[in-house]
Amino acid sequence: MTTSREVRLKSRPVGMPKDSDFEVASVEVAAPAAGEVQVKNLYMSVDPYMRGRMYDRESYVPPFQIGKALEGGAVGQVVTSTDPKFQVGDLVNSMMGWREVFNAPGSSLFKIDPMGLPPQAFLGVAGMPGLTAYVGLLKIAGCKAGDTVFVSAASGAVGQIVCQIAKLKGATVIGSAGGAEKIAHLKEIGVDHAIDYRATSDLTAELAKAAPKGIDVYFENVGGEHLEAAIAVARPFARFAFCGMISQYNDTAPSPGPSNMIMVVGKRLRFEGFIVSDHGDVLPEFLSDMGGWIKDGKITWRETVDEGIAAAPGAFLKLFKGENIGKMLVKLS
Amino acid sequence: MTTSREVRLKSRPVGMPKDSDFEVASVEVAAPAAGEVQVKNLYMSVDPYMRGRMYDRESYVPPFQIGKALEGGAVGQVVTSTDPKFQVGDLVNSMMGWREVFNAPGSSLFKIDPMGLPPQAFLGVAGMPGLTAYVGLLKIAGCKAGDTVFVSAASGAVGQIVCQIAKLKGATVIGSAGGAEKIAHLKEIGVDHAIDYRATSDLTAELAKAAPKGIDVYFENVGGEHLEAAIAVARPFARFAFCGMISQYNDTAPSPGPSNMIMVVGKRLRFEGFIVSDHGDVLPEFLSDMGGWIKDGKITWRETVDEGIAAAPGAFLKLFKGENIGKMLVKLS
Repeated sequence: MTTSREVRLKSRPVGMPKDSDFEVASVEVAAPAAGEVQVKNLYMSVDPYMRGRMYDRESYVPPFQIGKALEGGAVGQVVTSTDPKFQVGDLVNSMMGWREVFNAPGSSLFKIDPMGLPPQAFLGVAGMPGLTAYVGLLKIAGCKAGDTVFVSAASGAVGQIVCQIAKLKGATVIGSAGGAEKIAHLKEIGVDHAIDYRATSDLTAELAKAAPKGIDVYFENVGGEHLEAAIAVARPFARFAFCGMISQYNDTAPSPGPSNMIMVVGKRLRFEGFIVSDHGDVLPEFLSDMGGWIKDGKITWRETVDEGIAAAPGAFLKLFKGENIGKMLVKLS
Repeated sequence: MTTSREVRLKSRPVGMPKDSDFEVASVEVAAPAAGEVQVKNLYMSVDPYMRGRMYDRESYVPPFQIGKALEGGAVGQVVTSTDPKFQVGDLVNSMMGWREVFNAPGSSLFKIDPMGLPPQAFLGVAGMPGLTAYVGLLKIAGCKAGDTVFVSAASGAVGQIVCQIAKLKGATVIGSAGGAEKIAHLKEIGVDHAIDYRATSDLTAELAKAAPKGIDVYFENVGGEHLEAAIAVARPFARFAFCGMISQYNDTAPSPGPSNMIMVVGKRLRFEGFIVSDHGDVLPEFLSDMGGWIKDGKITWRETVDEGIAAAPGAFLKLFKGENIGKMLVKLS
C-alpha cells in the first residue's frame, strides 16, 4: 500500500472558485491489479477548461463529481507495471492529475518519448496546450505567411505557442496580455506588437493602431471586449479560431456578446470553435513539427510552477486572476 | 428624349427610414450613345441590404449619394440598342433600379434567358435572392440530407427559397416568421415546423421544442434573439450561414450580441458570413438547378408587388416592418 494525497471537489464553485471549494484527502493505493500500471505523478496541469467541468451540466466532457478527486492532465513515472507495454521508469501522460499516485489500465496511459525535453513540457509546449495552439492556428484558422494574427491571452500556455508558430509561418503577430511582465514575455518570444489590455481603455483603438490594415486571424482565448475588438478590426474574410473565453468562465449571469456581430456578414468573417480532443489525429504531425522547432531553438516557453498537491487549488485560481505566465503547473514530486 | 422618373436619396435616414428621406424626380433620357442600350424597367427590387448603403461609411459596396438616384436590381426590356449583343425586346437584369428608363453600356447588363418564367422571377427565385439562398445553404452551411435546418425570416424573398431547397435536399426545416399569414405561407411551402416569433416570449424554448435534438444548420437573416436561440439549440458542429441581420439595420446604437457566444467553443460551431456578389461563379449551376426545380414544380414562391415608381420608398419600408411575404417588388410598367 502506498499513501497518495488527492484534491477533491468539495462544493461547486459559484463565480470565482474559492479555496474552500476544494479539499485534500489521503487515500491508500493498493498494488496494481492485472493489466494495471502504478504511476507516481511528477507534474500535474491546471487548465482553464476545468472550470467548465465544475458546473453540473451537460457538456463535451462530463462534470466533476462532488467528493471525488478532480481529473486533468498529468505526467508521471511508472513505479510498478503488470502491463508488458510499460516498464518501471517510463514517463506517461494521463488524465489522472490532482493526485500523487494512482493505478490505471495501461490502455488509458500514453507513453512519452522524452525527445530530450523535461517531463513537464508534455503538459505544455509538447502537450495539450501546444497541440491546441497548433490545431487552432493552422487547422482551424488556416494561418499562412503574410497574415496579421491577433492572439488574446498571448502570454498563457496556449497563447505563447500560437504567437511563435504564427511567427514561424511568416505572420505578423499582435498579442494581448495584462501587465508589464507578460508584455516583456511577449517581446521575448518575438511578438511584433504587444498590447497591455489592462493599460488601455479602448482595446479596439489599440488593436487598430497595431494593425492599421486589419487582422486576418484571431485566436480567441478571452471573449468579451477582446472579441468585439477583433471583429471591429477584422479584414474581409478573416478567420477566428475560438479556443476559449476565460473572461467568462466564472460568470454567474450571461454577459452580453459583441455588439458588432452584424459585421460578420459584411466582412464575410468565419468563426469556428474547436476542442483539441477532437484532433488527436494531428498529434504525430504536431510532435514531429514541434520536436524539430524546439530542437532548432525556434520555439521557447515559460512556465509557472507551484509545488505540492496542496498547492493545486491555488494554482488553478491563478489562471483566472491572470497570475501565471506561460503554462501553469504543479510539481508533485 | 424620353422622360423617366427616378427615386433619389434626399437625406440619410436615422433609424427607420421615412418617406421624407426619399424624393421622386423626373429626368430626360437622351438616345443611347454608341455601345449603349436603352432599357425600360419592368420591375425593380427593394432589398434589406440597401439600408446599409444609405449610411455614409465604408463597406463592401459604396454608399448611396444624397441627391442621386438610388441603385438596385431591376429587370427591364431593351427599347433601343447600339450594342449588337442586345436586341429590342430583350429582357435584361441590371443594377439600375429605382428609375423607369435608363441608358447603360451593354457590358453592365445581364441578358436574361426567360426559361418560361415571368420577368420578375429574375429579381427573386431565379435572381439574387434565389442565388443567395442557394449559396448560403449549400456552399456556406453545407446543408445535407438528415440535417435539421433553422431559417429566420423564412417567409422572405431569400428565406422561402432556403426552406424549399433544404427540403429538396432531405433536411427537416424549421422556419420562423411573424404573423399568421406568413406562418400559413411556410406551411404551404413544406416547412416542417413554423414558429411565429411574435407569438412567443421565449424563442429558444420554441425552437428547442421544434428541434428536440438540436439544429445542424442556421440560416441567419435576422440577428438578435434569433441568433441567440440558434446558438442555444445548436448541435455540436452546427454550421451557421450569416446572410443578414434585418433586426439591426435601423439601429441607432449598437445592440448587444448573443449572450451565449461561449457555446461556440464547446459546441464547435462554425459561423460564416457571405455576400452573394462574391459567388457569381455559382450562377450557371444555380440557374440550371433552379430552372429544373421550378419546371418540376418543386419550388414555388410568393411575391408582394407595389405599383409605380412613387411606391418604391414605401415598398422598401415594408421590408423593415415585416409587411411583405416573399419577394418585395415594385412594378414599373
